[in-house]
Amino acid sequence: MDLAQQATGIELAGIDYAVVGVVMVIALAALAFGYVLIKEVLAAGQGTAKMQDIAKAVQEGASAYLNRQFRTLAIFAVVVFLVLFALPAETLGERIGRSVFFLFGAAFSAAIGYLGMWLSTRANVRVAAAAREPGEGREKAMRVAFRTGGVVGMMTVGLGLFGAALVVLVYAGGAPRVLEGFGFGAALLAMFMRVGGGIFTKAADVGADLVGKVENNIPEDDPRNAATIADNVGDNVGDCAGMAADLFESYAVTLVASLILGTAAFGGHGLLFPLIVPAIGVLTAVIGVYITKARTGESALTAINRSFYISAGISAVLCAIAAMLYLPSTFAELSGVSEEVRATPGSPALIALLAVIIGILLAVIILKLTGYFTATEHRPVQDVGKSSLTGAATVILTGLSVGFESAVYTGAVIAAAVFGAFLLSGSLPVALFAIALAGCGLLTTVGVIVAMDTFGPVSDNAQGIAEMSGDVEGEGAKILTELDAVGNTTKAITKGIAIATAVLAATALFGSYTDAIGLALADVAGALPPAEYFVYAPNVLVGVIIGAAVVFLFSGLAINAVSRAAGAVVYEVRRQFKDKPGIMDGSERPEYGRVVDICTRDSLRELATPGLLAVLAPIAVGFGLGVGPLAGYLAGAIATGTLMAIFLANSGGAWDNSKKLVEDGYHGGKGSEAHAATVIGDTVGDPFKDTAGPAINPLLKVMNLVSVLIAPAIVYFTVGESANPVVSVGIALVALAVIVVAVVISKRRSTAIADEPADDKTINGAPA
Amino acid sequence: MDLAQQATGIELAGIDYAVVGVVMVIALAALAFGYVLIKEVLAAGQGTAKMQDIAKAVQEGASAYLNRQFRTLAIFAVVVFLVLFALPAETLGERIGRSVFFLFGAAFSAAIGYLGMWLSTRANVRVAAAAREPGEGREKAMRVAFRTGGVVGMMTVGLGLFGAALVVLVYAGGAPRVLEGFGFGAALLAMFMRVGGGIFTKAADVGADLVGKVENNIPEDDPRNAATIADNVGDNVGDCAGMAADLFESYAVTLVASLILGTAAFGGHGLLFPLIVPAIGVLTAVIGVYITKARTGESALTAINRSFYISAGISAVLCAIAAMLYLPSTFAELSGVSEEVRATPGSPALIALLAVIIGILLAVIILKLTGYFTATEHRPVQDVGKSSLTGAATVILTGLSVGFESAVYTGAVIAAAVFGAFLLSGSLPVALFAIALAGCGLLTTVGVIVAMDTFGPVSDNAQGIAEMSGDVEGEGAKILTELDAVGNTTKAITKGIAIATAVLAATALFGSYTDAIGLALADVAGALPPAEYFVYAPNVLVGVIIGAAVVFLFSGLAINAVSRAAGAVVYEVRRQFKDKPGIMDGSERPEYGRVVDICTRDSLRELATPGLLAVLAPIAVGFGLGVGPLAGYLAGAIATGTLMAIFLANSGGAWDNSKKLVEDGYHGGKGSEAHAATVIGDTVGDPFKDTAGPAINPLLKVMNLVSVLIAPAIVYFTVGESANPVVSVGIALVALAVIVVAVVISKRRSTAIADEPADDKTINGAPA
Repeated sequence: MDLAQQATGIELAGIDYAVVGVVMVIALAALAFGYVLIKEVLAAGQGTAKMQDIAKAVQEGASAYLNRQFRTLAIFAVVVFLVLFALPAETLGERIGRSVFFLFGAAFSAAIGYLGMWLSTRANVRVAAAAREPGEGREKAMRVAFRTGGVVGMMTVGLGLFGAALVVLVYAGGAPRVLEGFGFGAALLAMFMRVGGGIFTKAADVGADLVGKVENNIPEDDPRNAATIADNVGDNVGDCAGMAADLFESYAVTLVASLILGTAAFGGHGLLFPLIVPAIGVLTAVIGVYITKARTGESALTAINRSFYISAGISAVLCAIAAMLYLPSTFAELSGVSEEVRATPGSPALIALLAVIIGILLAVIILKLTGYFTATEHRPVQDVGKSSLTGAATVILTGLSVGFESAVYTGAVIAAAVFGAFLLSGSLPVALFAIALAGCGLLTTVGVIVAMDTFGPVSDNAQGIAEMSGDVEGEGAKILTELDAVGNTTKAITKGIAIATAVLAATALFGSYTDAIGLALADVAGALPPAEYFVYAPNVLVGVIIGAAVVFLFSGLAINAVSRAAGAVVYEVRRQFKDKPGIMDGSERPEYGRVVDICTRDSLRELATPGLLAVLAPIAVGFGLGVGPLAGYLAGAIATGTLMAIFLANSGGAWDNSKKLVEDGYHGGKGSEAHAATVIGDTVGDPFKDTAGPAINPLLKVMNLVSVLIAPAIVYFTVGESANPVVSVGIALVALAVIVVAVVISKRRSTAIADEPADDKTINGAPA
Repeated sequence: MDLAQQATGIELAGIDYAVVGVVMVIALAALAFGYVLIKEVLAAGQGTAKMQDIAKAVQEGASAYLNRQFRTLAIFAVVVFLVLFALPAETLGERIGRSVFFLFGAAFSAAIGYLGMWLSTRANVRVAAAAREPGEGREKAMRVAFRTGGVVGMMTVGLGLFGAALVVLVYAGGAPRVLEGFGFGAALLAMFMRVGGGIFTKAADVGADLVGKVENNIPEDDPRNAATIADNVGDNVGDCAGMAADLFESYAVTLVASLILGTAAFGGHGLLFPLIVPAIGVLTAVIGVYITKARTGESALTAINRSFYISAGISAVLCAIAAMLYLPSTFAELSGVSEEVRATPGSPALIALLAVIIGILLAVIILKLTGYFTATEHRPVQDVGKSSLTGAATVILTGLSVGFESAVYTGAVIAAAVFGAFLLSGSLPVALFAIALAGCGLLTTVGVIVAMDTFGPVSDNAQGIAEMSGDVEGEGAKILTELDAVGNTTKAITKGIAIATAVLAATALFGSYTDAIGLALADVAGALPPAEYFVYAPNVLVGVIIGAAVVFLFSGLAINAVSRAAGAVVYEVRRQFKDKPGIMDGSERPEYGRVVDICTRDSLRELATPGLLAVLAPIAVGFGLGVGPLAGYLAGAIATGTLMAIFLANSGGAWDNSKKLVEDGYHGGKGSEAHAATVIGDTVGDPFKDTAGPAINPLLKVMNLVSVLIAPAIVYFTVGESANPVVSVGIALVALAVIVVAVVISKRRSTAIADEPADDKTINGAPA
């Protein structure tokens, strides 16, 4: 049964390098396949000159933003590189590897984000052009949009798998510490891209809606609105670049967690099986991308879901075969594991197989649940739509209820998956690994998921270009509207999957956290009272409360940042309407670039506070209160973060699609009171679903990895002979002080922007 | 230093009965003082016949609702009485006492709620009448309103203290288990009154606003609106009765937690000191109620805050004196405690003193913080008001940000108080007792807090009566508007204090929970792995996630219930406007009673699902996953619940007052676009601040006490020889099934109501 034992590859430290080699080849093949898809996308027609002009403006704006963002983040990355280097490590090799692979993780994350943006700003105009082709427009548009997503999906899985395999190849037994660096780099950069891109896209979107639809009664994406180009740029830097980096990070961190736990549970097999599972995912993703094609009369969502199910099914079967072939059927057959593990009853092959299937099933259920709560054809969105008959307030309340409830069900399903995987073995190391493997199971679907998600903003942008140019009409315009609505649901699904990886990875990383503490305790010859970790100890409970609070603060800051930046956009567009009266009748051209500049400036500025909070809060809690409260902090953040993330994503999705429902003619259609009410709901939902909500996933990963990385240092300064309360409390206070200063500064900025126009200077003034 | 040793009272089981006697006398004196205040309130003038007519209608509606609610709850109470009796207990006496005092707790809670409603429906018209008096109207109106609150405050502290002292008197050492029953009764009834009353009041309020202000453009409290009487009834059954029961419950449960932990930490002294502190609170509350008087040109809020500060200061001084006189200065001097505690360094007197002062300071800081975030004269509300210039969406977003942020700061302050009290001693039992004593410190302020809170709905109602009757004009009307706005802030403050008691009591009750498990383990001769409680264990983490999820579900259900019931109100009022065209010009009288009936029916029906969820969720988690995950569940619920409660209360308060700001003439004043935007914000905030938010406090207490009560049974069925997975998983599944069925039924109801009017039957129809 055990193929590995028959393998002819070089075997060192219990690792079968032939398997690593095969995995790396598959990873490179994914990248090559991505390249083929790029060629295919770029080969499509680009439409009229006007459409190309608009696309060019969007491309330039998006590149300018990302370039500025990367310049800013590069400085930050260097600082973190040095701090990481200074943190305790077992060997110099680990120390160097951790810092270097931190940069790799960050660079990969950035590269995927950049590529996602680059390609989608080129694909949007091609999708719009394809929709114009008579007869086969729908099929062609859908193909270009979905293949664009396919590219990003392939890059995500290819680079993630390649990076992780490379670490295993170079570091073998020392891999865990280095992998933490890799995962941290990926998560940190993704968080910044999610937050920054999220603020940019929603500041532009909300600002454009407020001043366009609400104040001047001009339609969405109307070229007279100076914020439209910025809105389209936002879709690319937020929904494409940010999302791609985020999913890469989910992929990398989940893989990292599995690899870290694998050795303890399954020995050498445990370091390789987590690479085999996502490698299978690469193959099935290729299938998924190629088979996606809507049959006549079938909605695009049905077609996408079908290929998701098919590829998930194939993954399950292939993973089952891999587990049976590669893993032994008893724990006694494993090498390189503790005696305790060798004595574990049950079969590693069976446990691994069931764990992976739990993960795949979890992805399927989240897809179903999210679809139910956010798609236009089901009750929840229809209820929100119906509530528009009694005004905006009931739209908001109904949407909030939908969000709350969907969060509960999705949260419960994720919790059930964790508990199910946990029950697979009575041995804690094996149970933790099973949870991580469930995460790997989820990963097999990431290729298709990324493709589905990228589909959303590309279609949205295509519609924007079509609308602005006026060159896509009739059937073509209808096709693009349909694809846009489907994109709203696929985007919500992705967020559900992403947050599920956060929970699985975080639960698994807790094992890594306590390992790190155990090692550090041995070094300082100290001991912790067991109550230090008891969930009912008051200090741990305080940690749980603070963890929950940080999620609330982060969400509040992100939403606030959007309000502020959107305010600046509104004032700028209003100014242009006032200073250039010709804009309204088309005789003058709005200065699109100025709005792009405002969004760029503001989102980079607003990025700092939530970013610092994510990195520094665990430091403040850990050094200030200790390792037990820090564990409580993580638990509180994971629990509240999971629910908050789904709540924000799904209520936002439901509002957006309830607006689409009304625009499709229900409850009075476009221009009715009901429509105005749903526009308000959609605007509220914008920062929910595209700024605060999706950023919580990388936030949780960053906080987890920061905790794992600083755990040895906390132990050093708080336990045993090396304990030094002055230093530890000092570090905590400095971290806290920086957070407070950052929050205060961003609050002060609030006034400055809100008060910009002269007629708002006094609270008594009431502008027209 | 130790007066107790010199006392001449009967001393038995380490308890000084003389002290208990004094405490009971003080409790009875509080009740007597309350009676005096009732006489004083009722002696005030009742205004014109028209005003009295309206008041009578409100009185009848409120009584009818509460009577029906009590009839329903009585059945439920009997069932719980029997279940409690069946649960394991050490002795038969404890078993009987626990069940009997459960009824006492429930009855006291109900009585205070009823009295609060009874008196405030009589005080409202008297406040309105007093406001009419030329010259001294403001002073008189404020006095009547605040004294009404004083009555409720006196009853709360009097009955709470009396009940707790009675248990101590009768059960001495066996008191803890019986006190759990008492606290549970109080919390359970309070939760139902909060939820039911909250749904009633906001269904009527939201419904009235939607159909009145938004659709027909008639002012708030206009007599042509058939929902106005129901709206006023709602203020009394929700904000008065529900709130009074809730604060009684906070008082009782915090006291219970202190008394339970006191014996372990301080012996007999520990069972009495927690009675002495609130007894001091009674005295200072009397002072607080009597000195509240606004100076000329001073806002009512300033006057109320001043008397709060003065009484808090006096409390602190008296508690310090009591601690110094009554408690010994070293632990070695304590009797009836373990050797471990006797060896604890530090002084019991000093620890108790500091703990109580932490509690009092916590109340002061919450008051300040809440005032900052919800009062019209500070930045946050002004920012929300300003955001009305860019429409309803930005009002919602800004309000949500205010809520998120204020939750963080308040949550952090509460966490800091817990941690501060925890640090007072290195011994865990003493540290837990210190946390409970901080809760007692908070309790010393409850008398004034209740008075402040009741002030809100009474003023609101007075304004309603004034508006409907048209008999209060000019200066009088202005006075009532001012008092109403102050009421919004005092109500938000109360909610902050109430949730703080939930955290302190819950943290302390965790000690009780683990004690109960320890005893039960000894009985079944089993043992738990220590990892069962580790916060990082996957099963505990699953518990934390489920705990957070239940808070989300509960909030969603409550908000949903309001939306549904409000929809029914809207349809009924619309129907009346259509069927009786004379209502608009005043020639026909609306059928107020029908709306009251609808609210009564719906709120009692909607009560069931959240109620069952609160009671059954801990049962499902405990029996299904075990005692460790149940502890995690409680931690998750406490953390998320705290933040959610404050978030909901403060964003709601900020929206309400930002509307008042615009109505005061800012940003365009009444009738402007900005005003319409803030009305939407206020409507969204209504179920936030008056239904979902305040109900979370009793929810946390109920879930905590259910867990403590069932802990021995869980251990019996899951650990050692008596373990029976079929029974335990069976119980869990039954509990889960009931929750699921209840949720499904309330979801189905959703459609029925929303589809009531014929023209809404199809999704295509768009009514005018």
